[in-house]
Amino acid sequence: MASSTGITKRTVVVRTRAALRDALAAAPRPLGVVPTMGWLHAGHRSLMQRSRAADATTVVTIFVNPRQFGDPRDLEQYPRNEARDVAICEEEGVDLVFAPSVEEVYPLGFDTSIRVGAIAEPLEGTARPGHFDGVATVVAVLFNLVGAEHAYFGQKDAQQVLVVRQMARDLAIRTEVIACPTVREGDGLALSSRNVHLAPEERAAAPVLHRALTAARDAWAAGERSGDALRSRMREVLAGEPLANPDYVSVADLATLRELDRIDGPALLSLAVRLGSTRLIDNEPLP
Amino acid sequence: MASSTGITKRTVVVRTRAALRDALAAAPRPLGVVPTMGWLHAGHRSLMQRSRAADATTVVTIFVNPRQFGDPRDLEQYPRNEARDVAICEEEGVDLVFAPSVEEVYPLGFDTSIRVGAIAEPLEGTARPGHFDGVATVVAVLFNLVGAEHAYFGQKDAQQVLVVRQMARDLAIRTEVIACPTVREGDGLALSSRNVHLAPEERAAAPVLHRALTAARDAWAAGERSGDALRSRMREVLAGEPLANPDYVSVADLATLRELDRIDGPALLSLAVRLGSTRLIDNEPLP
Repeated sequence: MASSTGITKRTVVVRTRAALRDALAAAPRPLGVVPTMGWLHAGHRSLMQRSRAADATTVVTIFVNPRQFGDPRDLEQYPRNEARDVAICEEEGVDLVFAPSVEEVYPLGFDTSIRVGAIAEPLEGTARPGHFDGVATVVAVLFNLVGAEHAYFGQKDAQQVLVVRQMARDLAIRTEVIACPTVREGDGLALSSRNVHLAPEERAAAPVLHRALTAARDAWAAGERSGDALRSRMREVLAGEPLANPDYVSVADLATLRELDRIDGPALLSLAVRLGSTRLIDNEPLP
Repeated sequence: MASSTGITKRTVVVRTRAALRDALAAAPRPLGVVPTMGWLHAGHRSLMQRSRAADATTVVTIFVNPRQFGDPRDLEQYPRNEARDVAICEEEGVDLVFAPSVEEVYPLGFDTSIRVGAIAEPLEGTARPGHFDGVATVVAVLFNLVGAEHAYFGQKDAQQVLVVRQMARDLAIRTEVIACPTVREGDGLALSSRNVHLAPEERAAAPVLHRALTAARDAWAAGERSGDALRSRMREVLAGEPLANPDYVSVADLATLRELDRIDGPALLSLAVRLGSTRLIDNEPLP
């Protein structure tokens, strides 16, 4: 369905499992899916572009998944604007948008949950109990419904990528999980749907996350291999921004997310910081 | 691959995920799968026959799943004879046997589990903690690997059928779960791989399970609608057999497995009984 003639076809929006299956029955393969919670931004656009380059059909799912929110207020306040989202999908040449209701994803009597083990425990798993169970469960449902060859996720949610990849591999779901680089504003702030909640002074302070990561990366590039030293470096930079309230800073093994004393292989620098009532995360893989 | 010419083709045995996918790539559809733990008996044969009648290709999986055994001794003692099992599959015209190792189903680093909620809690769920997590997880893996249109399970494991059906429906796995009638010996004993463990005097006592169910069914047919009365009727019959050590007797809603005070819709009579060290289960749906 992806046009190679320069003529943009209209993006089709479906809302039910049945309509999705009908729409995909004759879709050219390979199929790529970009699972989102809507409020699409340039980060999501980069995932769609990646799929458009690799896949004959691109599907975007838009679903704010209640099961991955621990805090009901966080769920309620999550930004939504489907019309704008669909327009963005259209601009990007997306073939199909699946925008189901909560009842369509979790029909009456839904009572199954998927838990991924060790990789889901530290960092966001500790900060947001139950979050990754909700992520793993909804992604399994979406993967099984869409049946794509490829799924594209942003590296900004690095642990989510690892959790989803583990789930799909373990359960023999034939969708390959592809992580794509984080897209940033000019001042380094990683794009996130949550950025819309930042008050102007918080938005001005928000690049401190990326500055902290960059400082630690620079120290690593200069030869520092101590986990504690790199964590301290990040905390120092965060301490310089009065509005930033750090949740965690981490220097962990890139595959297992276990905290490292010494870095002698691929690692992940990551952090979570509150700015007012908005919680932001960011990360930087090493090397 | 199923022969309609009367010529029996040789059953192909594969042991790896990759070999399974290769073998199924060009298999005529629809595809039916009979998931088993081996030590095949006439109950399994009836499932294969059901698939052979409905499906163009029939796959039998043989895998003793460690994750659904709470007791390591029970796992160790579970009877195994693959050569005999494959011969039975061949007799039944099965196209493909998938007999993977534990490491093939659960590769190094496997760390995902599936939990089904309320339907998995009573009866066998209470008696065997973790059992249905193991069942739901391995069946999800097998369903995703095989990708069959139909899966056949014995009604003898009534709760297992409900758990697997709920898991597949919730996770949008496109394999329909079909329950097939329990196959019994002439004296009423439900066929089970575990029957091989019964000492002669235990084997002689074992039809008491079916007699208890039949007595309760007869009382129901005569108009008894009290759950307590029917449970008592089962216990009375079991009490008449000195070797029988009842684990539970149940009169439950057929859809939810919640215990019933009064029967005013479809119900399930079920029980679990120990004979020596062997634990047997059986059930009878009403009406």
